Amino acid sequence: MTADSSSATVVGVDFGTLSARAVVVRASDGVELGSGVAEYRNAVIERTLPGSEQPLPADWALQDPADWRAALGTAVREALLDAVVDPATVVGIATDFTASTVLPMLRDGTPLCETPELRGRPHAWPKLWKHHAAQDQADRITALAHERGETWIERYGGRISSEWQFAKALQLLEEDPDTYRRTERWIEAADWIVWQLCGAETRNACTAGYKGIYQDGHYPSAEYLKALHPEFGDFAQTRLAGVPLSALGSRAGRLTRSAAALTGLPEGIAVATGNVDAHVTAPAARAIGPGQMLAIMGTSTCHVMNGDTLAAVPGICGVVDGGIIAGMFGYEAGQSAVGDIFAWWIGQGVPETYLAAARKLGMNLHEYLSSRCASQPVGAHGLVALDWMGGNRSILVDHHLSGVLVGLTLATTPEDIYLALLESTAFGTRVIVEAFEAAGLPVTEFVVAGGLKRSRMLLQIYADVLRRPVSIATSEQAPALGSAIHAAVAAGLHHDVPAAAEAMGRIEHGAYTPDPERADAYDEMFAEYRTLHDYFSGRGPGANDVLHRLRQRRNVATRQEGR
Amino acid sequence: MTADSSSATVVGVDFGTLSARAVVVRASDGVELGSGVAEYRNAVIERTLPGSEQPLPADWALQDPADWRAALGTAVREALLDAVVDPATVVGIATDFTASTVLPMLRDGTPLCETPELRGRPHAWPKLWKHHAAQDQADRITALAHERGETWIERYGGRISSEWQFAKALQLLEEDPDTYRRTERWIEAADWIVWQLCGAETRNACTAGYKGIYQDGHYPSAEYLKALHPEFGDFAQTRLAGVPLSALGSRAGRLTRSAAALTGLPEGIAVATGNVDAHVTAPAARAIGPGQMLAIMGTSTCHVMNGDTLAAVPGICGVVDGGIIAGMFGYEAGQSAVGDIFAWWIGQGVPETYLAAARKLGMNLHEYLSSRCASQPVGAHGLVALDWMGGNRSILVDHHLSGVLVGLTLATTPEDIYLALLESTAFGTRVIVEAFEAAGLPVTEFVVAGGLKRSRMLLQIYADVLRRPVSIATSEQAPALGSAIHAAVAAGLHHDVPAAAEAMGRIEHGAYTPDPERADAYDEMFAEYRTLHDYFSGRGPGANDVLHRLRQRRNVATRQEGR
Repeated sequence: MTADSSSATVVGVDFGTLSARAVVVRASDGVELGSGVAEYRNAVIERTLPGSEQPLPADWALQDPADWRAALGTAVREALLDAVVDPATVVGIATDFTASTVLPMLRDGTPLCETPELRGRPHAWPKLWKHHAAQDQADRITALAHERGETWIERYGGRISSEWQFAKALQLLEEDPDTYRRTERWIEAADWIVWQLCGAETRNACTAGYKGIYQDGHYPSAEYLKALHPEFGDFAQTRLAGVPLSALGSRAGRLTRSAAALTGLPEGIAVATGNVDAHVTAPAARAIGPGQMLAIMGTSTCHVMNGDTLAAVPGICGVVDGGIIAGMFGYEAGQSAVGDIFAWWIGQGVPETYLAAARKLGMNLHEYLSSRCASQPVGAHGLVALDWMGGNRSILVDHHLSGVLVGLTLATTPEDIYLALLESTAFGTRVIVEAFEAAGLPVTEFVVAGGLKRSRMLLQIYADVLRRPVSIATSEQAPALGSAIHAAVAAGLHHDVPAAAEAMGRIEHGAYTPDPERADAYDEMFAEYRTLHDYFSGRGPGANDVLHRLRQRRNVATRQEGR
Repeated sequence: MTADSSSATVVGVDFGTLSARAVVVRASDGVELGSGVAEYRNAVIERTLPGSEQPLPADWALQDPADWRAALGTAVREALLDAVVDPATVVGIATDFTASTVLPMLRDGTPLCETPELRGRPHAWPKLWKHHAAQDQADRITALAHERGETWIERYGGRISSEWQFAKALQLLEEDPDTYRRTERWIEAADWIVWQLCGAETRNACTAGYKGIYQDGHYPSAEYLKALHPEFGDFAQTRLAGVPLSALGSRAGRLTRSAAALTGLPEGIAVATGNVDAHVTAPAARAIGPGQMLAIMGTSTCHVMNGDTLAAVPGICGVVDGGIIAGMFGYEAGQSAVGDIFAWWIGQGVPETYLAAARKLGMNLHEYLSSRCASQPVGAHGLVALDWMGGNRSILVDHHLSGVLVGLTLATTPEDIYLALLESTAFGTRVIVEAFEAAGLPVTEFVVAGGLKRSRMLLQIYADVLRRPVSIATSEQAPALGSAIHAAVAAGLHHDVPAAAEAMGRIEHGAYTPDPERADAYDEMFAEYRTLHDYFSGRGPGANDVLHRLRQRRNVATRQEGR
C-alpha cells in the first residue's frame, strides 16, 4: 500500500436491480469523495432472452452476468474520476447485491449462460430476486418442511419464498433437468461478483442464511431434499456446500490482475466477502445495535435488526446468526409494497385540475397530494386501509392477500385516499414492530434509509403511529457506503464492522418525534386496522377468507380472458 | 270540451329538483306530442336566501315557490308550442313533484316566505327533499316511536327519515317557534302546486302516506306528538288534517282562470290530485302489477312496487295503501347513491392517457371506462365493493355507513374499480329484492326508468346479478307521461289509472335477460357481498362497527379542522 491509513480510501459498490453504483470513501471518517453509476445493458430480462425472439413465460425475471461485470468496471472507474483521488490510495473494495439473485455455473465460475451450447436455455441464466415463477416449488418446499417438522422453517416465519435459492433451483431441476445436470455450482450473484474480483469462490453468511436456508451449521438435509425430488437429494452437498461460510467484513481475497484491469484499482488490495443491499446498509446508518430497527423504504420495505438472542418472531423473512453483523442474530422482516402502493394510487389518476395545479406549483403529484392533506387532523378522512396491494410479507407471509379501503364517501378526495394509504403502511410497520416486541426483542429506534426517507409527511406519520423516534440514514448512497465500510474492515483499517460503522456511518437521530396527541388518535385508528387485519387475513375464528376467494376467482377469470 | 276523446290531449308536468318538464300527450294512446322545460331561477337555495347575505347553516336546502309557479307557466306554454296542438284539445292536467318538499303556509295557500315580514326567515321557506338539517329531530321521532311501540314505525322500515314532513316541521318548531306559530298549514309542494292550478287545498294519498306518516286512516296521535315537544301535540290536527285524502288519479278540481292565464290552457279543465315523481312513473312504464319492481335509477335509486297484501319488509322506505295505485299496497325502497357513486369515482380522476383516449374516441369517461371493461369475465378484477358511499337506505336504513373496496392490487385499474362499483349497486339492489321476497312479495320483473336506463352494460349486470329480466320504461319523459296518464283519468278519458297505463304507458319487456353462466358467477360474488354487508353493517354477532367509529372520528376531526 502506498498510502498511510489516514488518507486511505476504500470503494463500495452497490449492485441494484437496474444499475451498479460505486463510491470512493475516506476510510478514516466515511466522507464520500466521489461516485459513479452504470446501468445494466439488458436491465431486467422479462420478455425474451438477449438475441432471441422466444418469449419467456409469465413471472420470469433474468439478468445477464456480463452486464454486472461491465457495470462494475464502469461505475468504479467513474467514481475514481469523480473523487479525483489517486487510485493508489484505495486499499479495499466491497460489494453488495440484490438477493436472492442466483445463477448456475461451472466449477470454474463460468455462468452456464456463457457456455455457447446453453446460451439459448432460459434456465441457464441468472434468476433475478423478483423472478416469481417458482411459487409452486416454494409452496411444496414450505409444506414439506412443516410436514417433516424441519426446525429451520420457523426461522423463516414459517414460509420459504419463491424468490429464494431452493425454490429457484428446484424449478430449474423440474423444468430443465438437462441444464440442472450441467450445473456444477449454484451461487448467489453476491458471491459470484466477489469471485470476479478475487478469483475464488466464497459464500457469505448473509445470503447463505437468509436465502440458502443455512442454519446451525448446515443446509437442509439430503433426506428432506430427496423427498422434494429424487434427483434433488445431493443439491446442497454438491452445489452449495464445500466452501466455508465467510463472516461479513472478512477478507475474501485480494484483487486479481484482471479485476484490477477492469476497475482501474490496484492489484492485490483487499476484497471483502459479499453482502446484500439491505443488510449492508445497517452499518452505514450506524443502526446495528439491538433495538435499532433499520427500514429500507422504497417500492417495498425491508426491515433489518440485530438481536443478542435468538427468538421466534412469527412472519419474519428470516433470522440468521451473523446475518447483519458477525456475532449477533440478524432479523429481517418486510412489507411487500410501500412506495409501490402510493405510486399505484397516483397512477389511478387524479383530477385534471390537480394535474394542472401541481404543474403550476412545480410539484410532482406526490408532493401536491401531500400538500393538500398535510394539515388534516388524524381521521378527518374517515378512512382506514389495509396495505396489502402487493400481498403481505410480514407478518402474514401471504402474497395472495390484497388491499382493502374502508370508509369511502361521496366526499372522499384523492388526497384523502393517498393519506390513508400512507398511514396503512405505517400501521403495517407497527404490526411488525409489535411482533418483534412480543417475541422479546424491544424496538427502541426506527431508522429509515431508502428513497422514501425524503418524504417528510410520511415519516412524521411513522413517528406518530409507532410512538417512537424516527431517525434517518443521512448518506445518499447508504448501501454503497455500507459496502465501503466492509471494505475498510477487510483491509484492516478498522478492527471490526461496528468500529468501522462508528467511524464511517452517519445517522440523524430522532429526526422525527411523535406528537402525543396525534399518536393517541393513531392508537385508535391502529386498533381498527388490527381488527380488519385479523378479519381479512382469513385466519382464525370469525375471519373472512374473501381475499383468497377473490384472488382465486380472478386467476380463473383472467386465464379465461387470456390476459 | 271542444275535442272528442280520440283527439283529446292531456298535459303532465314533472317538477324535479332543478327544473319543471311538461309534456302534451294524446290521451288515447300516450303519444307524446311535445314537451317543454323550465329551470328554477333560484335552483336549490343552500348558501343564502335570495336577496340576503346571511349564510344558511350546513345541510340546508330550500326552494322558492315563485320559481315553481313561473316554471309551470313557462314549461306548459313551451310544450304546447312544441306540440303544435290547439290548446283547446287539452282536457286535463296533472303534476308530480319531488318529495318530501314541504312548506309552511297560511290557510289561504300563501307560502309564509311570501309574507313580507317573514321573507327573511329561513324557516319560512319551502324545505327541499334534500334538506338534511333535521337529522336530530328524525332520530328522536324514530326513537320515541319505538319506545312507545307505535305500530306505524314498522311501515317505514323502522325509521323516519330526516327528509320527511314531521322531522322538518319539528325542526321549524324548535328552531323558529315564532314562524311555527304563524304556520297555519304545512303542505307538500305536490299538493301546493295543485292548489295553484285548481284554487283549493287537497292532500294526495301518496305523500300523506310515505312522507306524512298517514296510516290506517290517521296521522300519529296527539299524545305521541306532544311527547316529542309540548307545543307539537296539535300539529297533525291543525296543520295537516281537515281535508280528506285524495286517491291518485282523482280530480282535485278544475283549472282556475288565473291558472289558465298562467299556462295558456283552457279554464275549467280537470286538474288531477298531486303525486310524487317516482311513484307517478309506474303507470308510465306499465309497471303497476304485483311483482313488477320499478327502479328509477339516477344519482340514487328509488324502487316502487305494488302488492296485493300488506307485508312487513324490513328496511323499506314505506308501504302505503293506495300509495302508487288506488286499491293496492304501494311499497317503496331506495338506494342512497347509485349514479353518484360512479360519478364520484370518475371524479377521483383517471389517468391523463385515458382522458386523451376518451376525447379522441368522442366518448365521455363513463363510456370509455365501460368500453375498457365490457368484455371482462365476472370477477376478473378480483374486487368486491360495498355501495355505501352515500350511506344505505334499504335495507339497513343507516346514513352513517360508508363504502368499502376489497381486493385491490397494484394491477387494479380505474376501469376495474368502476366495474366493481357498478356491480356493487346491483348487489345492493339484490339485497332489496331478496328482502321483498322473504316478506312474501315475489319480484318477477325488474323495470328501469331514469337516466341510467341508457347504460347498457350496467343493465346487463343487473339482469345477471338479479337473475331476472330487466325491462325498460321507453318514454324519455316517463314521470311527465305518468302525470299525463293521471290527467287523463282525472278528465274521465280512462276509467282508472291501470286502464290508462295500459293505453298510454310504454315498456320494453325483457330488454336484458340474464346470462346463466355470468349469473352463476355473480351468485358467488353476491355471497361475498352479503357477508361483507352483514359484517360492516355493525349489527349482530361477529359484526364490526368500524364504519360508525370512522364516521364519528371524521366528524370530530373535521369540526376540529373547521372544514
